Amino acid sequence: MSNKIRIGIMGYGNIGKGVESAVKQNKDMEITAVFSRRDPSSIQTEATVYPASDIASFTEKIDVMILCGGSATDLPDQGPLAASLFNTVDSFDTHARVPEYFDKMNTAAKKGDTLCLYSCGWDPGLFSMMRVLFESMLPQGSETTFWGPGVSQGHSDAIRRIEGVADARQYTLPIDSAIEAARDGKADGLTTRQKHKRHCYVTAKAGADKEAITKAIVNMPNYFSDYDTTVEFMDHETLLKEHGAIPHGGFVIRNGKTGDNNSETMEFSLKLDSNPEFTASVLVACARAVHRMRANGTRGALSMLEVPLAYFSSAGIADLRTGKI
Amino acid sequence: MSNKIRIGIMGYGNIGKGVESAVKQNKDMEITAVFSRRDPSSIQTEATVYPASDIASFTEKIDVMILCGGSATDLPDQGPLAASLFNTVDSFDTHARVPEYFDKMNTAAKKGDTLCLYSCGWDPGLFSMMRVLFESMLPQGSETTFWGPGVSQGHSDAIRRIEGVADARQYTLPIDSAIEAARDGKADGLTTRQKHKRHCYVTAKAGADKEAITKAIVNMPNYFSDYDTTVEFMDHETLLKEHGAIPHGGFVIRNGKTGDNNSETMEFSLKLDSNPEFTASVLVACARAVHRMRANGTRGALSMLEVPLAYFSSAGIADLRTGKI
Repeated sequence: MSNKIRIGIMGYGNIGKGVESAVKQNKDMEITAVFSRRDPSSIQTEATVYPASDIASFTEKIDVMILCGGSATDLPDQGPLAASLFNTVDSFDTHARVPEYFDKMNTAAKKGDTLCLYSCGWDPGLFSMMRVLFESMLPQGSETTFWGPGVSQGHSDAIRRIEGVADARQYTLPIDSAIEAARDGKADGLTTRQKHKRHCYVTAKAGADKEAITKAIVNMPNYFSDYDTTVEFMDHETLLKEHGAIPHGGFVIRNGKTGDNNSETMEFSLKLDSNPEFTASVLVACARAVHRMRANGTRGALSMLEVPLAYFSSAGIADLRTGKI
Repeated sequence: MSNKIRIGIMGYGNIGKGVESAVKQNKDMEITAVFSRRDPSSIQTEATVYPASDIASFTEKIDVMILCGGSATDLPDQGPLAASLFNTVDSFDTHARVPEYFDKMNTAAKKGDTLCLYSCGWDPGLFSMMRVLFESMLPQGSETTFWGPGVSQGHSDAIRRIEGVADARQYTLPIDSAIEAARDGKADGLTTRQKHKRHCYVTAKAGADKEAITKAIVNMPNYFSDYDTTVEFMDHETLLKEHGAIPHGGFVIRNGKTGDNNSETMEFSLKLDSNPEFTASVLVACARAVHRMRANGTRGALSMLEVPLAYFSSAGIADLRTGKI
């Protein structure tokens, strides 16, 4: 019998596919099953696919269920249901609703005697960890998070809903001078417009009014009106060819003062070819931590802030002590 | 009665002074006493100074003792002695001897029913944490640590021991092209010489042979012979004025592959005006974590790899969940 950590994947979109791929890089785990609300026969994967409604019969076969649904409509219901049955990992990323989501997950996990790691990934997730770590070490200072260069799915979707738009990709771009200011501890007064800009690649429908599309984009409240936004039209073939990937990344930068006004800068950054694949890689390391912490007696809902880093590693602490400290 | 965490400082050099300064930035802690092997009356500080030999009478008055001695001669004896009496934090940084030091500290801590966080600071410490975190998330990849730009005390001392040298400062400088290679996952084959270079500012004694000094430096085994080293002579006034500070920093960079050969880069960096003050700031956050984990029942010797990040923060987890995730 295998001693590997038995992973379930709930939801087989970009993140779910990324999890399947990431598990292959980790010898201490294996995919036991994929669950989907779509017709299992329609899904192309090496793993066995079951209907999402079957999960309750897998409680003895899966050690950690990785929830790969979205935060808007999937996780608020799917999360607590899964948490009452399985140890889980999810990437719930609606920052403002994290406390509410935690409450639901914690209640479900206590009921199910499970351990659930919520809001994993890189933001929330790694970036949250860095914000807390940096502030703890430099309490007198200021911190800025920058996102990009990268494709924002939400902003791309917002453009696609405009009349006359066939397809679109929106890139969020941090502004170099703002990054430099953050490193020097001078980013506190910067406006939204001074920190990021937005560039949109748009394929218009035949005969669409490009000027009207551009105006609709740059003036869109919440999404674009607070930013310097540029719009570039191209045919669909070029859009798919040149902007088919889903790169992303970002920076957490804190500058603080110590002693007699000495300046200290801590910085964490990510540069990602594939946002969903990297996010999935984080979720998989989180699944290992969940499996181990549950074995050590921990129950309930936790964030990545509450996980000792050694739990993410496939190496034991004695090996880490020798090779990594 | 104060509810603040009561901190003791053992050793009042640059790190000890930095701890005193860092504690002032944290409202949940206070300095109870400084201990020194020097004559207490010779030490300039706002805190009360006691002879190091008096520590045993402070076990009820101090929550965490921060050990600010050096790794070569102070900590190997001082660490276990203190660990048998107090919860401790230290910055033991001889990487190769960490397992041996852990054994001694763990034995002493178990005997004393204390919790000891060893090898804290930034390397070992934050850099160790990042090496483990990055590898856990990108198991198929390669990682490089760069140090500097910064002053190396050990290398500066080595130059001062050369005949004819009055004073010296050695800067370790990472090589930009190597940093770029690491970000692209192409640093694996780089030699020592390709990753860092060394620049030395030297004040020669009157009448000393500068050419001989330069030769002695650049050919010194272990310290300089594997690097491209440059030597620059200057008068002592200029040396003190332009190179009196102790800046340092560095980079941990990991590039890994996900999915179908997508490239993902994780990077952590520090840029420090004052190496000892920043190290001290880390030690102080570690003291908070020790105090809390001990209160929750943890005993023995731990590294920063074994501390959930939330423990370093002065904020409670509910506040972190709302504001930082």
